Amino acid sequence: MIVPADFLRRIAAAAAAETLPRFRSQGAVANKLAAGFDPVTEADREAEHAIRAIIKAEYPDHGILGEEHGAENPSSSYQWIIDPIDGTRAFISGIPVWGTLVGLTVDGEALAGMMSQPFTGELFYATGTGSRYEGPGGERALATRKTTALADAILFTTTPALFKGGMRGCYDRLEQAVRLSRYGTDCYAFAMVAAGQVDIVTDPGLQSYDIAALIPIIEQAGGVVTTFDGGPAEDGGDIVAAATPELHEAAMAMLRG
Amino acid sequence: MIVPADFLRRIAAAAAAETLPRFRSQGAVANKLAAGFDPVTEADREAEHAIRAIIKAEYPDHGILGEEHGAENPSSSYQWIIDPIDGTRAFISGIPVWGTLVGLTVDGEALAGMMSQPFTGELFYATGTGSRYEGPGGERALATRKTTALADAILFTTTPALFKGGMRGCYDRLEQAVRLSRYGTDCYAFAMVAAGQVDIVTDPGLQSYDIAALIPIIEQAGGVVTTFDGGPAEDGGDIVAAATPELHEAAMAMLRG
Repeated sequence: MIVPADFLRRIAAAAAAETLPRFRSQGAVANKLAAGFDPVTEADREAEHAIRAIIKAEYPDHGILGEEHGAENPSSSYQWIIDPIDGTRAFISGIPVWGTLVGLTVDGEALAGMMSQPFTGELFYATGTGSRYEGPGGERALATRKTTALADAILFTTTPALFKGGMRGCYDRLEQAVRLSRYGTDCYAFAMVAAGQVDIVTDPGLQSYDIAALIPIIEQAGGVVTTFDGGPAEDGGDIVAAATPELHEAAMAMLRG
Repeated sequence: MIVPADFLRRIAAAAAAETLPRFRSQGAVANKLAAGFDPVTEADREAEHAIRAIIKAEYPDHGILGEEHGAENPSSSYQWIIDPIDGTRAFISGIPVWGTLVGLTVDGEALAGMMSQPFTGELFYATGTGSRYEGPGGERALATRKTTALADAILFTTTPALFKGGMRGCYDRLEQAVRLSRYGTDCYAFAMVAAGQVDIVTDPGLQSYDIAALIPIIEQAGGVVTTFDGGPAEDGGDIVAAATPELHEAAMAMLRG
């Protein structure tokens, strides 16, 4: 199956119509979890409604799994996995590095996906035959950088504080081994791996909807995305994405300690 | 003295002509310091040249202090302080939260300034009579949020690792006292204080050119920017910016320990 680029563009536009007017609008923020801070805005809920409507009209038999509204057709081989706003902290802080994530898995394997950032007007997507970019810089194929050594790599993570127990020491050693590290950009950093700007992104404890859409964009641009032990990333977990297989092996070795 | 908005717009445009074509272009990165990683690109140097030319044509007797090319007319009461690309790590990583900073101090006090982000097409500026925004969301006055309690505040810092020795414990207690914290956005986070999206930004060890342009934008939007002991921020140092005087007092008290 190949997913038409225009179908992904329509999803991005429908989500943008719900998210963008509410970005920097000081809208109400509800707490989804009593413990900790997991903001979810009206934008999140309305965007997921809009995305579901487009998928159901085109692929009525496919399954849909969303962060906000649960699962439909869970036994289908085709599953669309939605995170209407990945990076809700960035969203409520006014920083345009959040994104709308929609991915398609077939029999559990990520085949196509998109990440859109409507404030910058950017769309990163994979159709099943390649990864592409559309944005202010024009339209082009996405390709990862050919970095193979940790000493040459740019590393991103949301925050080292998410690495608990023994994992923290492993992360710190990885950070010390790379050329440059930076924190806090959610899905945008993963998109930058596909775009050849960032070499490694790692985040522990991801959910399926945090990563499923990004896997095909990175893989079809030449990169590798797995759990720390090399397993499939589609179900989430402790995730590492890298620009090349060699760099991915080196990063995994550090993260496993 | 009031600085015309159009003069700041011309500076932003001239800088953008040098920075934007080189953003995500994999340009050569030189190491400015042998120890550590302090990247400075061709974009940085060329943008500063372009900005200096505009200032010198309009205000030939004023002083200019730039990160890349040193000082001119250092004895003038009027000093323009330039950082052509604040957030060089973001720049080379492809993340559009870097900015061009140009500020004017008069007898050492910040009077006017601008922060421009050309990829998103945003300009945050202060003319001496108020702070304004121009960007994809339209044109409007900037005003800080009226947050007065740490428990309601959103806090940004580049990375807690920059807080050395006893300062780190103070920062950690501040982070524990706020509603939400996030890392890694350089000048963009300071601009978001002026825009009413972020409540506190703190970074130790800033240079004058990292902060001078941002002071009037935040102050003329209702916020406060000082060193940790309440002194002027114009010469850099350990800096804390906050949305209101009350919140600024509370943040300073935590940071001083």
